[in-house]
Order: sequence, then structure tokens, then C-alpha cells
Amino acid sequence: MVAPRVYAALSQPIVGHLDPYFFQITEEVRALLGYVFSTQNQFNMALSGTGSSGMEAAVANFAEPGQKFALLANGYFAERIGEMARRQGADVVRLEQQWGRPFDPQNVRDFLRRERPRIVAFVQAETSTGLFNHAKHICEAAHEVDALVIADCVTSLGGMPVLVDENGIDIAYSCTQKGLGCPPGLAPVTVSERALEYRRARTTPVPSWYLDLLLLDTYFEGRRYHHTASATMFYALREGLAIIAEEGLEARWERHRRNHLAFVAGVEAIGLEMLVTNPADRLWTLNTPRIPAGVDEAKLRQYLLEQRGIEIAGGFGPLAGTVLRIGTMGYGSTAENVLMILHELESALAQQGYRAAGNAQAAAEKVLATPV
Amino acid sequence: MVAPRVYAALSQPIVGHLDPYFFQITEEVRALLGYVFSTQNQFNMALSGTGSSGMEAAVANFAEPGQKFALLANGYFAERIGEMARRQGADVVRLEQQWGRPFDPQNVRDFLRRERPRIVAFVQAETSTGLFNHAKHICEAAHEVDALVIADCVTSLGGMPVLVDENGIDIAYSCTQKGLGCPPGLAPVTVSERALEYRRARTTPVPSWYLDLLLLDTYFEGRRYHHTASATMFYALREGLAIIAEEGLEARWERHRRNHLAFVAGVEAIGLEMLVTNPADRLWTLNTPRIPAGVDEAKLRQYLLEQRGIEIAGGFGPLAGTVLRIGTMGYGSTAENVLMILHELESALAQQGYRAAGNAQAAAEKVLATPV
Repeated sequence: MVAPRVYAALSQPIVGHLDPYFFQITEEVRALLGYVFSTQNQFNMALSGTGSSGMEAAVANFAEPGQKFALLANGYFAERIGEMARRQGADVVRLEQQWGRPFDPQNVRDFLRRERPRIVAFVQAETSTGLFNHAKHICEAAHEVDALVIADCVTSLGGMPVLVDENGIDIAYSCTQKGLGCPPGLAPVTVSERALEYRRARTTPVPSWYLDLLLLDTYFEGRRYHHTASATMFYALREGLAIIAEEGLEARWERHRRNHLAFVAGVEAIGLEMLVTNPADRLWTLNTPRIPAGVDEAKLRQYLLEQRGIEIAGGFGPLAGTVLRIGTMGYGSTAENVLMILHELESALAQQGYRAAGNAQAAAEKVLATPV
Repeated sequence: MVAPRVYAALSQPIVGHLDPYFFQITEEVRALLGYVFSTQNQFNMALSGTGSSGMEAAVANFAEPGQKFALLANGYFAERIGEMARRQGADVVRLEQQWGRPFDPQNVRDFLRRERPRIVAFVQAETSTGLFNHAKHICEAAHEVDALVIADCVTSLGGMPVLVDENGIDIAYSCTQKGLGCPPGLAPVTVSERALEYRRARTTPVPSWYLDLLLLDTYFEGRRYHHTASATMFYALREGLAIIAEEGLEARWERHRRNHLAFVAGVEAIGLEMLVTNPADRLWTLNTPRIPAGVDEAKLRQYLLEQRGIEIAGGFGPLAGTVLRIGTMGYGSTAENVLMILHELESALAQQGYRAAGNAQAAAEKVLATPV
């Protein structure tokens, strides 16, 4: 869901990609991205592609042919990072964990001490499972072996604490259409000074000209033509970020946390279990209740889309058919939406003969009524 | 300039990137791109990036490490293609021509017979010089040595005849913000069946996951998730393409041709020379009059931008300071704009003491009054 103010920004008159007014906007975006990423980094920019272009930029600029690239693999998007790193010719080494389960910090430390990679990549908010991978222990273990850390923040940024500096993340990227509440189309990225030095010292060419971060810096910082960035998309992103600054990042996180907790209380009252067992490891932006036995997930989603106009997502890969993925993020993370989706979910389950164990609305309302 | 209908499309409510309605739009875009590219190709799509991402997709999918890649180099954007091909590890061989001058067909044939490359790349509409590189002789010579042809159609598509099938272009790409009259943000691409077979037979991985055309085909054609395409940008592109279909492609070309000819008649009346000497080699979308002696180009453009709110571009590289680049394209290609820009240009020149030789308005109006 996109805020009305962002829709309004989308139809503002376009200026050129080298217009002084356009660079004024990119400067505002740079500062506001520093705020939402919680970083003092100066290298914050929005790439002209969707979230996956942010992933590709992070991987293509830092993974090098033959060099060791450590992947913490516990979900679909981690696999995508691994695929991109292999395409760059990197030597990808993997620490595996079951989808939806967190890594053990000691295992991560042992793995990185053994492998001694140049780059470590993980997904902070795994959209495929609803798991929050806590960054701090990963970054500490990586820095102990002098590796740089890439964090995928696609489903965390703007909805829960990414905390780039506090966690020690070197390269983070995200998208615009989740926690930032904008249409898809740009990929926010932040890079630490340490990672930039590493990048500047690279001797092999980055295969992607389009996503070469140093060329992009000559554009956004040096104001020399690189590509024709979309004023439209930057207007929308600036508006989405301004809305976050007005709400306040902490207040926004708290809104997401509360609406997530209310949703979980509701689905648990219905009798559904959450895939992610430890509440502290759950995303506030995306919830993954398990499908109860006897319920057809595809039929349930089709009913909600076609009969009720509600689009929710299913599981991928090993989770196909076994979980739902229900977003409570950005402009869409509201008490009203939580109560509405619980009601609709209950009806959709009832259609397939599943009877709710308890009162979802009451359970959710109880959480929503708790003082902050 | 963007049509009001396209601005309106930008603020339409967003749907998901796997929504059946979204794929209905991508199907319409596919068919309409076939129309504007003048091709029977089925592989037409809009990539989630700006025009340069189209260039990168064309190069990265077809250039391979160590293989010969022939570049017809007579402008800035041709150099960019060469830079991308080098980053892919291709063996780039060059046929040079002065910026703003056309290639001699016999020279092209001799060069390709001698080099026997796998891929030949050229820029149909060179934005840096205003030159139209005629495609047919290049494609014929390339096919004679069994090479595939990549054509950059960034500044031709929607404004003058690209004619993919008639010319024999194998891979063409463009942008949305020029002849199509949309905001920047997507890169239309079309690929021939022959080029697709070549791509499918490729054994080395394409370094870019984001721009891998076969993965993109599983998304747009196979409707399996790849990345989160921007419904907003597709709404705008569909509207821009629908406007072209309503106007009719031939009528649109004729509108561009006439407004270009009127502009040229006007600047020549003022006393300026066109960089591209042969009228048949000039773009209808972008005009490059030379700066007369004694006139400071930067000062002239600054005056137009700051005092008159008109943004025109200067020359790059070897043409820096010596030409203006004035667009007459898409929604902005109107008789009124031609007369207005001639008037403003005349005033800006007069500010620097340059006196027009003749009556620009009368010369332009004469062309505009000629029956089609």
C-alpha cells in the first residue's frame, strides 16, 4: 500500500536528470536514507532498479572472481545472493540453516574462522520465511576475520530496526515498496567508508557498468552524467522518506511491532502456528502463519484475491503450500488492516471447513489496547 | 515532456508484480512494443531500469568473454556500448568514424569481413551528435558474416522509423522518456528468434542475474517470480504506447519529421549550421546546431534554464562547447514548441551580441504550412 501523498508525488512534473532541482532531491534522499538506515555513512543512494538491482549492485561490486564469499543460507533470498555471487565467479561457501530457523552465533563464528572469506552475506529480513536474522553477531564474527558484511534489508528498512552503524553492516540495500511505502522502482543502498576503500582498491572491473557504485557516485555526488535517473521515482521516494521522518523512525517501528503482535495474537487465537517459533526472531513487517492440516493454501489465496480483493502471498521452495506470507508494512501497517485481515482469513478458512479455536478479534484488540 | 494522460496513469493504484491484472498490462505492453519497434518478434519486454539497463542487457546477454564484438564507433553512446562489452570480457574491435559523420557502407562491409565478429553493435540514433546511423547496410553486412546486430534505439523509438524487422536488427533497446513520452524508468527491448536461439545456446553464465533475458522471460512470459516490477512504471508505459497507437506510428513519425525540418529551417535562417551535414542523416527527435563563433555555449544554456525555464543540452566529449542538443520529441514535438524555442534561442544569442541572419519564425512556419 502506498500513501496518498506518495501517489500525489508521482504525478509531479518531471525535470531532467541533470537539473539542479533533481540533485537537490537526490541530496534530500541521501540524508533521509542515512536516517532510515541509522547510519552516518555519506554513501547512501537509490539505484535505478528494483530491490534485486540493489542486491546485484552489492554482490557485483564486492564479490570478485575466485575470492571467497560466505553465504548464510536460510531462505530464498539468501539463495538468490548466492546465485548472483556465483555468476560473478566468486567461490561461494555456505553455512546452511533450515528455512525459518535462526543461525547459532557460535556456528557462524566457527564457520567464518574456518573459511576466512572476504565477504559475508546474509538476509536481515527473510521475505520467504518471516525470519529476522540478527545482524550484530554476524557482523562481529565477520569483522574478526576482516571480512565485509552485506545485509539484505529489503523487508526490514522503514519497518523495523536495521541499525547499520550499531550492527556494523558494511553494505546494505533495500527496496522502496515495503517499509518505505512507495511504488517499486528504486533500490536504496548504503556503503560504509571501510567498504568504499575496499571497492576503490579493486583491480578487476565490475562487470556491470549500470550498477558500478563508483560510476554512480560520480553521478549523484559528482553530478556528471551516468544514466537518466527517474525524477518521478525520486519524487515518490523523497515523499515516502519524508513521511517516515515526520512519523519518527522509533514510532514507526513501534507501530509495526504492535500491529505485528496483534496479528500474531489473532492468528494464534484462530489456532494457527507461526513458522518462526521464537517471537524475537519474527519480522514485524511480514507474518508467516502455517497452513493448518486439511486447508488448501492455493484455494484460500485464490478466494481472498478473487472474492475479497485481498492479495496475500504463499510460501516458496520448501515452504510451498505450507505457510502464508501476510504483510503488515509501511502505510498498510494499521490496526484496521490487522483486524480486517484476521476477519477475512477466518472466513476463508471457514470456507474450507476449518473452525477457529478462539476469538481472533478479541485477542488482537487486547494487544492493540496495551499502552506503549 | 510527458503527456497529461501519462501523468494521470502514474498515480493509479498499484497492484502486485504477480497480480493477473499486472500481467494483462505486461501483455499489452509486449504487443504495443512490437508495434512501435515494427517487428513480429514475440520477445518484447520492458526491463526494470532506465535505457542504459537496456544497453547493459543487450551487451551482457550477447557479448561473451574472449569473443569478438564489433563496435561501430561514431559517438558517445557507442563508446558506452564498447565499455560495457569490455567489462564483459569481450574482444572489442572498432570501426571509427568522426562524431556526427555517417559510416560508409563499403567500409563497414570490409571491416566486418576482415574481423568476422560474433556481435556487431551500433547506435541508430546517436543522442550525442544528432546523427541517424542507417541500419540496413550494417545489418546486411553483419548477417553476411553470420553476426548478430545490436541497435541502440534510445532516441529513435517512437519518433522515427526503427523498423526492426525490415532492417534486420536482432537486438534493439530503448528508453521510455524520449520518443515514447513517458518518465524514465523502464527499458523496452526486443530480441529476434535467431538471437534468442543464440542466447539459449550460450554456455557461460550471464554475469547479471538482474538483466538475464531468459530469467526475465520466465517472469513476463512464464509468470514465475523474478523481481518486483513496478506497476506504476508499466501503467505509464502502457499509456504512452496507447497514445502512439491512437496517433498512428506513421503519423507520429511525420509529425516529428516536420517539426524537425521546421526547426532546422529556423536555425539555418538564424545563420547556424547543423553538425550533421546531410539532411537524410539527421535525427528528427534531436537537433544539433553548431554554436556560432563568439558565443559561449554554457552561458547560453544557463540563461535559457535560469531566465526562461528552458532546459537544453550541450555537446559532450569532442563536441563539448561546440553544439547544442535540442530535443523535438514525443509529446514535446509540436509546432508551438519549435516556434517558441527558435524565438528563445534567437533572444539568447542576441544577449551575447549575435544577430540573426534572417527570419527564423518565417522559415519554420513555411515548412509547417507545407501539406503532408
